[in-house]
Amino acid sequence: MIIDCHGHYTTAPKSLEAFRQKQVDGLKDAKLSPAKNSLVIRDDEIRAGIEGAQLRIQRERGTDLTVFSPRAGGMGHHIGNATTSELWSDICNELIHRVCKLYPQNFTGVCQLPQSPGVRPDNCIAELERCVNEYGFIGCNLNPDPSGGWWKEPPLTDKWWYPLYEKMVELEVPAMVHVSTSCNPGFHTTGAHYLNADTTAFMQFLTSDLFKDFPTLKFIIPHGGGAVPYHWGRFRGLAQDMKKPPLKDLLLNNVYFDTCVYHLPGIELLTRVIPVDNILFASEMVGAVRGVDPETGSYYDDTKRYIDKATWLSDADKQKIFEGNVRKVYPRWGRNK
Amino acid sequence: MIIDCHGHYTTAPKSLEAFRQKQVDGLKDAKLSPAKNSLVIRDDEIRAGIEGAQLRIQRERGTDLTVFSPRAGGMGHHIGNATTSELWSDICNELIHRVCKLYPQNFTGVCQLPQSPGVRPDNCIAELERCVNEYGFIGCNLNPDPSGGWWKEPPLTDKWWYPLYEKMVELEVPAMVHVSTSCNPGFHTTGAHYLNADTTAFMQFLTSDLFKDFPTLKFIIPHGGGAVPYHWGRFRGLAQDMKKPPLKDLLLNNVYFDTCVYHLPGIELLTRVIPVDNILFASEMVGAVRGVDPETGSYYDDTKRYIDKATWLSDADKQKIFEGNVRKVYPRWGRNK
Repeated sequence: MIIDCHGHYTTAPKSLEAFRQKQVDGLKDAKLSPAKNSLVIRDDEIRAGIEGAQLRIQRERGTDLTVFSPRAGGMGHHIGNATTSELWSDICNELIHRVCKLYPQNFTGVCQLPQSPGVRPDNCIAELERCVNEYGFIGCNLNPDPSGGWWKEPPLTDKWWYPLYEKMVELEVPAMVHVSTSCNPGFHTTGAHYLNADTTAFMQFLTSDLFKDFPTLKFIIPHGGGAVPYHWGRFRGLAQDMKKPPLKDLLLNNVYFDTCVYHLPGIELLTRVIPVDNILFASEMVGAVRGVDPETGSYYDDTKRYIDKATWLSDADKQKIFEGNVRKVYPRWGRNK
Repeated sequence: MIIDCHGHYTTAPKSLEAFRQKQVDGLKDAKLSPAKNSLVIRDDEIRAGIEGAQLRIQRERGTDLTVFSPRAGGMGHHIGNATTSELWSDICNELIHRVCKLYPQNFTGVCQLPQSPGVRPDNCIAELERCVNEYGFIGCNLNPDPSGGWWKEPPLTDKWWYPLYEKMVELEVPAMVHVSTSCNPGFHTTGAHYLNADTTAFMQFLTSDLFKDFPTLKFIIPHGGGAVPYHWGRFRGLAQDMKKPPLKDLLLNNVYFDTCVYHLPGIELLTRVIPVDNILFASEMVGAVRGVDPETGSYYDDTKRYIDKATWLSDADKQKIFEGNVRKVYPRWGRNK
C-alpha cells in the first residue's frame, strides 16, 4: 500500500474562496460577513474537483491513500482574529471530512487549526478534538508562524504551545509543521517561506528539551525537511558543539521528514542521509509545482518515481517509506477504519 | 591554488568586542560612546589570533588564500542607527585590511557594509568605494535583512538596492548575500537564519528581472545555497510554472554557490546538481561548526576533503571550484596584486 502523507485540498469549489472573500470583507464591514450556512457545496461539486485531479493522479501514479488536509496557503491565520480562524477552520475541516466520507479508500483527514497571531494555542484544542473524535481525523497541521511571514510567535519549543501538545499526545495525533501564505514581500510563499519554516522548526527542536517533556509527541517536517538533510553535517556539528546527544537520540524518535523533494538527486540525498525509519512518502500533489520536468518527461511532484528508482533502498525500506512509517506516526489511522 | 571564498575574522582581539560593547552602551548614554581612536590593536595581537587559527588551519588543510571579511554575526546592522553602523564598519573593515597587509599571500579582503534598518543602501556606497579603492578589497557582504530576523527591508530585487548595485557593477565587485545575528527568538542564527536567508535571496532573484537590469552583477549565495540545490527540482518547476526561462539562463550568469556544506553527501548533491561553473570553494573556517565529525574523524568544516573525495569531478572541474571561478566572480583579485 502506498500512502501519501501530504496532500492539500487545492481543488475545492470556487464558492469556498468566494465565501472566504466575504469573510475577509466582513472584517471591514460586519454587514458583509457571511453566515456559515450561506456556503452550500454539493457532493457533485466536490466529486468533480477530486476526481479530475487528486483521484485521477493517484490512479495514474499508483498511489492508494492521501493524508488530506485543507489548502495550506489558504489557512491564512494572519487574517482577522480568533473568531475568523475558528469559522474558517470549521468550514475547511468539514469539507475535508466530506471528501474522506465520499472516498474513504482514498483519503484520510488531517485538520487545519484555528490559529491566530498572539492567540494561545489552547484555543485550537476544541477544534482538534472535534476533528479527531467526530471526523476520525488522524493529525493536524501546525503553523509555527500564524503572522504569515513576520515570525512573531514564540518558538515551537516554548511552553506557550504545551497545552496543544498535551492534547496531541492524549489523542495520539502528530502535527505536520506547515506555514501558510507569506504576507512578507521578502518571502515567496512556496519557494522560500515553506522551506524556511521547515528548517526553522527543526533547529527549534534541536536546541530544546521538548522531547524530554513529550517523549511521544511527533512532528512531520514537510518538503523533505527544508534545508535540513542537505545540511545534515551542519546540524550534527551544531548539536555536537552544544554538547547535545547525537541527532538520532535527540530528535529522531519524534521528528520525521516527508519526500516532497522534486528531483531524484534530492531524494537520493534524503534517503541516504536520514534513516529510513524517519522518512514518510509524500508528494503534495496537487500543490506548489505542477509542471512536467523536461529532464525526465515526468511531473516534478511525481515523487513515487524517484523512490521507485532508488536502487539503494531495499524493498523493506520502501515499504517503510510508503506505508509502515505512516502507520507508526499516525497511529489512529488503522484504528479509525 | 586553492582559494576559500568565505572566511570571517572570528578570532579578532577581545578589545574589538569591548569597543563594540561601549558603542552599544553609548546608544543609551552618549557619555559612554567610545572615540574611534580609543581602540588600539597591535599587530602582534592580530598575528596571535590569525596564526593560531586561520593561518594554521590553512596550512593543515592545504588551502592557500582566504577571501576574508568581518565576522558575519558581529555586523549587527540592527543595532543603533546609520552612524553606529558607519563607525563599526569602518573599524571592522580596517582590521581586515590590516590582516591582509600582514599576510598578503593568505588573505584578501571583503568588506562589511554600514547597513542600517530602513536606511537606503546608497548610504553604503562611500564605504564600499573606500574599501575597494584604498584597501584593495575585492567584494562585499550584503545583508538582505539588516533588521536581524524581522525581514522588514524590500527584497534584494527592489529598486531600493539599485544605487548600490550600480556601484558594485562599476567597481566590478560581487556581493556575498550574508545576514548577521538573528534577534528573532524563532530563528537560530547559524542553524536557521543563515540558511533561510540564502534560500530567500535565491527565490527573490528567481522571481525578478534583476539580471536583465544588471547583466554583470554577481552574487555568491553562501552555505551551499541554503536549501536551493537540495530543492533544485522545486525551483526549476516553480520557474517553469511562472513561464520563466530555465534557471541556467535566468540566474546562473549572476548567482554562485559556495561549498560550505559540512558532509560529503551534501557536497555530492551540490556538485552533481549545480553546474561546476557556479560553485566556489569555501569552508567558513573558523565559523559556525567547530567540531570533529565522529563519522569521518575530520573537522566538519574541512570542506576541501569532501571536494578531494569527489571522484565524479574531473581535475578541470576541481580547478574551477578551487580557483578558476573565484577569479571569474571576483575579477579585481588578480588585478590588485
